[in-house]
Amino acid sequence: MDTRPGKVFLVGAGPGAPDLLTVRAARLLGAADIVFHDALVNPGILALAERAEKVAVGKRCGRHSTAQAFINKRLVDAARKYAVVVRLKGGDPMLFGRAQEEIDALRAAGIEPEVVPGITAALAAAADLGVSLTRRGVSRNVAFATPRVGDGQAASDWAEPLATADTGAIYMGAGEAAAIAATLIGRGKPASLPVVAVENASLPGSRRWLTTLGDLPALADEAFAGPVMLLLGEVFATALAAADADRVRTRFLETAQAHLLRVAV
Amino acid sequence: MDTRPGKVFLVGAGPGAPDLLTVRAARLLGAADIVFHDALVNPGILALAERAEKVAVGKRCGRHSTAQAFINKRLVDAARKYAVVVRLKGGDPMLFGRAQEEIDALRAAGIEPEVVPGITAALAAAADLGVSLTRRGVSRNVAFATPRVGDGQAASDWAEPLATADTGAIYMGAGEAAAIAATLIGRGKPASLPVVAVENASLPGSRRWLTTLGDLPALADEAFAGPVMLLLGEVFATALAAADADRVRTRFLETAQAHLLRVAV
Repeated sequence: MDTRPGKVFLVGAGPGAPDLLTVRAARLLGAADIVFHDALVNPGILALAERAEKVAVGKRCGRHSTAQAFINKRLVDAARKYAVVVRLKGGDPMLFGRAQEEIDALRAAGIEPEVVPGITAALAAAADLGVSLTRRGVSRNVAFATPRVGDGQAASDWAEPLATADTGAIYMGAGEAAAIAATLIGRGKPASLPVVAVENASLPGSRRWLTTLGDLPALADEAFAGPVMLLLGEVFATALAAADADRVRTRFLETAQAHLLRVAV
Repeated sequence: MDTRPGKVFLVGAGPGAPDLLTVRAARLLGAADIVFHDALVNPGILALAERAEKVAVGKRCGRHSTAQAFINKRLVDAARKYAVVVRLKGGDPMLFGRAQEEIDALRAAGIEPEVVPGITAALAAAADLGVSLTRRGVSRNVAFATPRVGDGQAASDWAEPLATADTGAIYMGAGEAAAIAATLIGRGKPASLPVVAVENASLPGSRRWLTTLGDLPALADEAFAGPVMLLLGEVFATALAAADADRVRTRFLETAQAHLLRVAV
């Protein structure tokens, strides 16, 4: 029996649309013997792994559905059994993907994984919106942050980079909208700061809302159902003004490709 | 004569490796009638645009090689002449890509461009290094910033998000290493903070250096030649300690896939 370890690839699945996978990721899925994937990975992406055994191990919205230690062990075991092992993670593995624990576990077992980057949700959302996160004279930096704290994680200051950056991208923040608004306004961001919330960026069922930091908590209570990417900053001021000019006062209802609607709660 | 405008796509070329294009970007290049591209786009990527006229309009390292107004005009003109127009930008168009000026010019001409995201350099570098930019208990946010100021741009505070974030990614900062180190140390980051510099992430000729914030300016003077991505934060502490343990005291010389070397200047 050949006991040489196989090759393990930590692969970014991107935001959801199958054709926003990288070419390398698509090829690796086609070649994979086994794929360990997060719960939220799009079925159209998993379908590319035609010959692979598929194992759902993933997390939903930052919550551990399968204990991390168990995932680590299964990856190491699979590397000893299969030639091509793919660990597929939503977005990019190195940004809010909890990849390091798996990389460390593999290295401890003598296996050096290869990481394949993916399109992260904030950049997919910016592309959908047609609004650049950086803009000459308006924004020259972007903070990517999350208010969520993992089990046993010390509460470092999640808010300060968002409070000082020109543009902010908040991952896994939909359930913390009240704390986000209160904290950032308390640190000097104006309540009128434009905020865009995007659900399912890049997918046909994508929804988006345009609001302000002050109105965000009410919107979140009212409208958010699944994982939502929050983008905030003056780069969205033009979009917000245009939505206001439309005098739209309905509660929202919004699909990809349609115009942005200002939510008046 | 059909004067209906063609479709314009602002496409992220990713970090350089052709198979780190998205599947959508690769298909669009194959279908393009004309491609306007930055100067630094990899020839292997341009080769995918088999039937397209290729026009270099791009910037090197943030400098305007072709005046932006002229690029805008050429895009609008092309949309009136060709069915599929691709504007190809290094990395992701919405992050330090100056995409907004082109989007606004197209919209002003009645053309709504579609944006296709790309892998941004910081995430490609993290993948190459096998080090996650976020890590439980160490880093829960990342600031993406640049110290470079465009013509006529007000000098907003580029440094504060970097000073307060757990992890920093600095674009177009190679020529400003002394200012970066002095400013961030002045705002409380330790001189011992690990810094990784990555040149040509994802490409075969990639070079990387592992150093500290205090040693960065000397390294930059000594070693940097082309565009370099700077990543800083405690997430790189393990890599730095391992390099120290190797007691490597040569000045560097480093290629992708080799171990990281600590630079002792």
